[in-house]
Amino acid sequence: MPTVEVCHSPALYPVYENKDSIVVVVDILRATSAICTAFEYGAEKIIPVATIEEAKAYKDKGFLAGAERDAVMVSGFDFGNSPYSYMGEKIKGQTIALTTTNGTQAIEAAKNAYRVVIGAFTNFTSLCNYLMSQDRAVLLLCAGWKDKYNLEDALFAGAVTIELAKKPSFSENIADSAWACRYLYEANMENRFRFFKNASHSKRLAKLNLKKDIKYCFSLDKTGIIPVLRDGCLVKMEI
Amino acid sequence: MPTVEVCHSPALYPVYENKDSIVVVVDILRATSAICTAFEYGAEKIIPVATIEEAKAYKDKGFLAGAERDAVMVSGFDFGNSPYSYMGEKIKGQTIALTTTNGTQAIEAAKNAYRVVIGAFTNFTSLCNYLMSQDRAVLLLCAGWKDKYNLEDALFAGAVTIELAKKPSFSENIADSAWACRYLYEANMENRFRFFKNASHSKRLAKLNLKKDIKYCFSLDKTGIIPVLRDGCLVKMEI
Repeated sequence: MPTVEVCHSPALYPVYENKDSIVVVVDILRATSAICTAFEYGAEKIIPVATIEEAKAYKDKGFLAGAERDAVMVSGFDFGNSPYSYMGEKIKGQTIALTTTNGTQAIEAAKNAYRVVIGAFTNFTSLCNYLMSQDRAVLLLCAGWKDKYNLEDALFAGAVTIELAKKPSFSENIADSAWACRYLYEANMENRFRFFKNASHSKRLAKLNLKKDIKYCFSLDKTGIIPVLRDGCLVKMEI
Repeated sequence: MPTVEVCHSPALYPVYENKDSIVVVVDILRATSAICTAFEYGAEKIIPVATIEEAKAYKDKGFLAGAERDAVMVSGFDFGNSPYSYMGEKIKGQTIALTTTNGTQAIEAAKNAYRVVIGAFTNFTSLCNYLMSQDRAVLLLCAGWKDKYNLEDALFAGAVTIELAKKPSFSENIADSAWACRYLYEANMENRFRFFKNASHSKRLAKLNLKKDIKYCFSLDKTGIIPVLRDGCLVKMEI
């Protein structure tokens, strides 16, 4: 049954787990937005890792490596999780190891699902088209903030739910969690930026002077690429 | 800091736990609505227990006992969790053991908080007045359905958030989880019943011919009582 559900915390994933689902990992600010950007700029592969030590080990072997904790780039790495740092010629053809506070933990939690894909406003239309083309349950797994609910991931889940609900097989199987996100998006779709000033993570990022990042992460369709997990690594889905 | 937060699943309570918080346990359909009803009709004490066996042991000792699983009263008990069954003279002065699918599990999860109180639309105004009178963090703990998100509990959390946000010390500390519930309530406050037809639990209860229960559980202010947990038992709070 092609249900649409939202799980608001990686810590709650076992409750929602369904090995037949397509899991969309969502960490709008900023991991999944940055991952989409890296592929748009020609990255070959992204290796999501849980710890800074693992990312460092890849860096020591000569790979590019990104590491973010508490919204800040960890010193000694090539990138944090600002999408702007994943642009330009240096990305092309590269394999990049990446660890972030929330996003890479969510990917790790879901790794045994039927398929794990990366969702962001920046690949919104491609992602929705792909999900609509599949007759399969969708679980939107929000990375949240340290296992708590966050607004920007829920907002994105609402936007996807509205698209999927246009297909009758999905519209009859929208779980409560997805309905609620739909209301959140409908109330705020006219002005995603204004809405976002209430979000806790906005305040966290504004202090770090990251408004440019926020604006980018709320922009639609910067890429047509859907990153997908294959053998533990993210690669570009062949559509 | 008097934050307002919402935890959508008892399974996620450890992430939100703060020993200084007032935890409001919310299981609109129907455990917390029924608990408020029992106190309105003069119950002396409610003993929340996790298992059917524990509830049965109390019944064998001569107590009244309620047990519900999957929205149905367990056979051999005095009550399920329909509020209508907790009305009338038989309730007055009684101690009642109670186990339900979700609600009593949420009470158990939160038992070490500064204070655990019971919230429902049926004691809404009293509850909000009490919370407003305290200068203390509030965590709305939604019982959900088998550890998943549900709409009716989130709707109630939104209604409470709107009230608390009228006090400046709260309004500056509304967590993302509570903001989202606020939007849900604002979008649906004009017609809580119509809204509710989308909720999964509505479909579950409609099949069981429980529309009368649903209507009751969405009614405001049937009582001024706030049940509170003391030494493992729910009693009427002295206000």
